[in-house]
Amino acid sequence: MTQLETYITEHENAFLEDLKGWLRIPSISTLPEHTDDMQRAANYAVAQLQRIGFDNTGLIQTQGHPLVYGEWLKAGGKPTVLVYGHYDVQPVDPVELWHTSPFEPTIQDGNIYARGACDDKGQTMLVFKALESLMQVNGTLPVNVRVLIEGEEEAGGESIEQYVKTSPERLRCDAAFICDTHMPAKDIPALISGLRGIVYTEVEVQGARRDLHSGSYGGVAPNPLHALAIIISRLKDADGHIHIPGLYDKLRKPTHAEKEFWHNDPLHINESLRTEMGVTQLSGELEYPPLERISARPTLEVHGIVGGFIGEGAKTVIPAVAKAKISLRLPADLQSTEVFALFERAVKDIAPPDVTVTVRNLHGGEGILVTPDSPPIQAAIQALKETYGKEPVFLREGGSIPIAALFYEILGTPVVLMGFGLPDDNLHAPNEKYSLDQFFNGVRTVARFFELMGQ
Amino acid sequence: MTQLETYITEHENAFLEDLKGWLRIPSISTLPEHTDDMQRAANYAVAQLQRIGFDNTGLIQTQGHPLVYGEWLKAGGKPTVLVYGHYDVQPVDPVELWHTSPFEPTIQDGNIYARGACDDKGQTMLVFKALESLMQVNGTLPVNVRVLIEGEEEAGGESIEQYVKTSPERLRCDAAFICDTHMPAKDIPALISGLRGIVYTEVEVQGARRDLHSGSYGGVAPNPLHALAIIISRLKDADGHIHIPGLYDKLRKPTHAEKEFWHNDPLHINESLRTEMGVTQLSGELEYPPLERISARPTLEVHGIVGGFIGEGAKTVIPAVAKAKISLRLPADLQSTEVFALFERAVKDIAPPDVTVTVRNLHGGEGILVTPDSPPIQAAIQALKETYGKEPVFLREGGSIPIAALFYEILGTPVVLMGFGLPDDNLHAPNEKYSLDQFFNGVRTVARFFELMGQ
Repeated sequence: MTQLETYITEHENAFLEDLKGWLRIPSISTLPEHTDDMQRAANYAVAQLQRIGFDNTGLIQTQGHPLVYGEWLKAGGKPTVLVYGHYDVQPVDPVELWHTSPFEPTIQDGNIYARGACDDKGQTMLVFKALESLMQVNGTLPVNVRVLIEGEEEAGGESIEQYVKTSPERLRCDAAFICDTHMPAKDIPALISGLRGIVYTEVEVQGARRDLHSGSYGGVAPNPLHALAIIISRLKDADGHIHIPGLYDKLRKPTHAEKEFWHNDPLHINESLRTEMGVTQLSGELEYPPLERISARPTLEVHGIVGGFIGEGAKTVIPAVAKAKISLRLPADLQSTEVFALFERAVKDIAPPDVTVTVRNLHGGEGILVTPDSPPIQAAIQALKETYGKEPVFLREGGSIPIAALFYEILGTPVVLMGFGLPDDNLHAPNEKYSLDQFFNGVRTVARFFELMGQ
Repeated sequence: MTQLETYITEHENAFLEDLKGWLRIPSISTLPEHTDDMQRAANYAVAQLQRIGFDNTGLIQTQGHPLVYGEWLKAGGKPTVLVYGHYDVQPVDPVELWHTSPFEPTIQDGNIYARGACDDKGQTMLVFKALESLMQVNGTLPVNVRVLIEGEEEAGGESIEQYVKTSPERLRCDAAFICDTHMPAKDIPALISGLRGIVYTEVEVQGARRDLHSGSYGGVAPNPLHALAIIISRLKDADGHIHIPGLYDKLRKPTHAEKEFWHNDPLHINESLRTEMGVTQLSGELEYPPLERISARPTLEVHGIVGGFIGEGAKTVIPAVAKAKISLRLPADLQSTEVFALFERAVKDIAPPDVTVTVRNLHGGEGILVTPDSPPIQAAIQALKETYGKEPVFLREGGSIPIAALFYEILGTPVVLMGFGLPDDNLHAPNEKYSLDQFFNGVRTVARFFELMGQ
């Protein structure tokens, strides 16, 4: 066992305690009542960086939640890696479906359960612990490192976008490293070769100027909920085809190799998707392989509909206003603001004439496609191979990490997307968890990645 | 001024105080946390009846909220009138849109504002006060009276339905009197000649077995919210036509006189509907006059959609389950359980194959059509004429009072539907109110109705 491995093994409990402390802070970025918790979670990350031995650590104030910054630039002549993570988490509703308290991390059957256990406190903490281990063992780091952690990843990420665009010199680096993705299974190491972008919208429909009683007005009243149903049902049909004129025009054909990979499905993802969802048939565009549908096709989903009566029992109200939250996932070829414009036009074209429709772009981010031939990607491949004993697979991921596209575009560097989440980690859902094996293997792999980057 | 009129005028403040005391009790029948309030509101009605001098007053326990009963049967040889009302009220959400506290009755500009001010505590209290005035002035009542007040009108009315069906002998009468409807305007007295029935349903759609992240599963996941949008949009089109096979089959043609009344719209209801709703065009089936649409056509409305993320900001969840509350208003020709069966079949036929759909009948009630030639209706016409100085108009009302159909069917008596609400009373909405003029004119008119019934 190397000194590094010994250090990691001996400090497993201490690493977990540091993760738990972070998970106990309910840093939900979208809920105003958690503003103080956001500050506490950010300071917790600062303290971690200080303990490792980083310089210029502290908070960068923004219009929203603060960014966390730290740097260690004493590896003369070595490359610089920019590490990204996020300390904010998703809301916990419906909280009654959690088996344990979402902000009291609980270890069961080799997993740690808590909101943020994986996304992204767990994955960010393992990078901290890789850096701490290297520093403790060697008294130095093998590369220069900048760390930039945001608190608005689940809320649109506007502040970091602003910062990257206005202060790129502060972030100069040779590679960006993002630990916020997952592997298909515990024994299948993976690197992400593509991410979908996103455009997240809110469609607000106004009918009458006040709520109405359906007994008195049913038959002559505009019903915003009904108008939303018409809009949503026409935007996407039951076969998964999106009816937004122009949407598919700029979509590039995938490579032959990708098509073959999706078609052959060597990781049996079709089957695991069915199992995870508990369905006998997958939904969506049946003419495309499921792997392509979840990673390389544009998709449209409605996430919630606000308005009217949603309590127990019966209330015969026709609401004056209703809103739907609708997002599109976009392969890298499709640009989020362009798609928003197409979406807005389509929604207004579909809307019945008796309602007024407002379409808002709540946030957007671009997709990304990375190539495996750069030195950072090669170091990542080698590190994963050493930990897991096999070559990583290259996957496109269906989710969106807009910051990856931004780093690529503004900083002009390769982006390593190496993550240790698993498909059943319940991201954004009740009972989020993170595998302890994956956490500790993550520490080892990321530490090796930094060593290899420095060679 | 008659002695009766003098008594009423001198006791206006006392009457209002009694109404206020009742309105302060938040008797929301659909919310379990108000069970104690329901009991209090019921006992408040019992105390009112005792004060008038009723016999056998008390609560009738049911599976749900108690019924209030009282009788005064000492008018030998005179007819018996069964008075109905309800002490339960609608929920108050969205409470932030109320200008005054919903359970602290507030008088402003000649109106009393509170949940239940009109529907139906205000309208029930004015009947109590008519009876009290007659008793105080004459030491007796001109007719025999039974009073039956329920606490589940806004929650399906199952208990009273059960009671009427099993104990009709206790309710034997020559006329039923219901004060739970409205007039087109302060100077247009009205009697209701027809009420629509209702069937209130909940459609539950199940997709995957747990909530999913749209980044990882978008493209292969069933989306129950999207399925609901498809179902709702196909049940009714943007032109107000309902696509439930068989629904319109049993609908009878209206009379020539009704058609002419709707077409001519002498009360200018088309214009007032537009003003009240704040719209330039009325929605719905344009080939029918608006008056027909709101009173004599079947209509379908969605009242709320439960499921997914409805907080501030963005959450990219695909919910496992979503529910919609959908009701139909039914002219008397259409029977509610028959329509529910047609509805259920239509929903299941429309539903996409990747979701499981459950359709629940939350409650239903039949419509009614009454004829003007019976003595109780003639007494009602005369009483309104004396108070308002003009003949009342006969209106079909779009709302549902299932108990009216039940009295008609089980007790075999004419049903007088005389109400003093106004179109802008905000029933079931924030800022419910009742006009004080209407309240006191109601006391006068109902007292006269009882006198005329006794002659």
